[in-house]
Amino acid sequence: MPKLWSETVAEHRDAVRDAILDATAALATERGLTAVTMSGIAQAGGIGRATLYKYFPDVASILTAWHQRQVVTHLLELAEAASDVDEADILETVLRTYAHRNRRVRGHADGADLAAALHGTDHVRRAHAHLEDFLSVLIGEAADRGQVRTDVPAAELAAYCLNALGGAAAPSSKALSSKAAADRLVMVVMAGLAG
Amino acid sequence: MPKLWSETVAEHRDAVRDAILDATAALATERGLTAVTMSGIAQAGGIGRATLYKYFPDVASILTAWHQRQVVTHLLELAEAASDVDEADILETVLRTYAHRNRRVRGHADGADLAAALHGTDHVRRAHAHLEDFLSVLIGEAADRGQVRTDVPAAELAAYCLNALGGAAAPSSKALSSKAAADRLVMVVMAGLAG
Repeated sequence: MPKLWSETVAEHRDAVRDAILDATAALATERGLTAVTMSGIAQAGGIGRATLYKYFPDVASILTAWHQRQVVTHLLELAEAASDVDEADILETVLRTYAHRNRRVRGHADGADLAAALHGTDHVRRAHAHLEDFLSVLIGEAADRGQVRTDVPAAELAAYCLNALGGAAAPSSKALSSKAAADRLVMVVMAGLAG
Repeated sequence: MPKLWSETVAEHRDAVRDAILDATAALATERGLTAVTMSGIAQAGGIGRATLYKYFPDVASILTAWHQRQVVTHLLELAEAASDVDEADILETVLRTYAHRNRRVRGHADGADLAAALHGTDHVRRAHAHLEDFLSVLIGEAADRGQVRTDVPAAELAAYCLNALGGAAAPSSKALSSKAAADRLVMVVMAGLAG
């Protein structure tokens, strides 16, 4: 059966949207965040300015959409890491995945720029809350198995993990400077969770 | 003996400088960071615009100077906390002082704005490095006393503490939402350090 016309349109819209986000991320990495303009994005994405404005009103809204896509990808990555291992190893595996991803992202000078540009927006607050909730559930389950201390609420322990693993940390931090250091950091964080 | 003229001038300069920083901080808190202008600062500080420009070329340099003054105050506060207690309690006392101060600062919506505005500047990187060095020394000493694990370098443990205690954390974080939560967080961080 051939696809419905509406499905084809929706797919096309998604593809254009993705292309816009990709072009914006590439431009930001290449020229720096402050040099990104609507005209530059249209050119890099190979679409007309008028078309671009049908999708997004301004650069800020594109950056927000880009970051939302990153967050969803990131959460899927963490959930996938959790699905591949024994129940007893889920928490540590997720924390390690998170730590290593942060290390990769922070290697890009531009990741820090973008984080600073988006810092404090409602959108970032919501994304952070999603991640905290996801981790709180895993920590609660690990506590039920006796792997995690029960004298501190799971939500506080989740926030502890996210902060300690450097999600919002300064790029100067030495804690995630190598893969081995990131692994050591996960070990230290886990010791804090165990109590 | 009367003061030397040069001393009086230096004192006067320091007093004017402090008044400018105080006026800027008050303005930023009252109206938000983006509404702070050189004219507004001159007016709030009770000095002429021409005088203000003799001290600082722009708002950004005033904010940086203000933040530097905060960092020095903060380090003195931590050093003072360390000087009042038994050697064995120094590290925990300093971490608790740091956690509680972060909680106070983050209560101000404007603290977060300012942190975002200054985020990623060389100046903030240096301030962060100072704090990490200060803590590394304390951690090394605690490790010598057998209070802290020795399988992870002190510098990495220092970065872990600073991140976990939320120095650069999102204001959404639940970890420091109350004094009791901040105390629990210090306990968790210490457990991570002990290994």
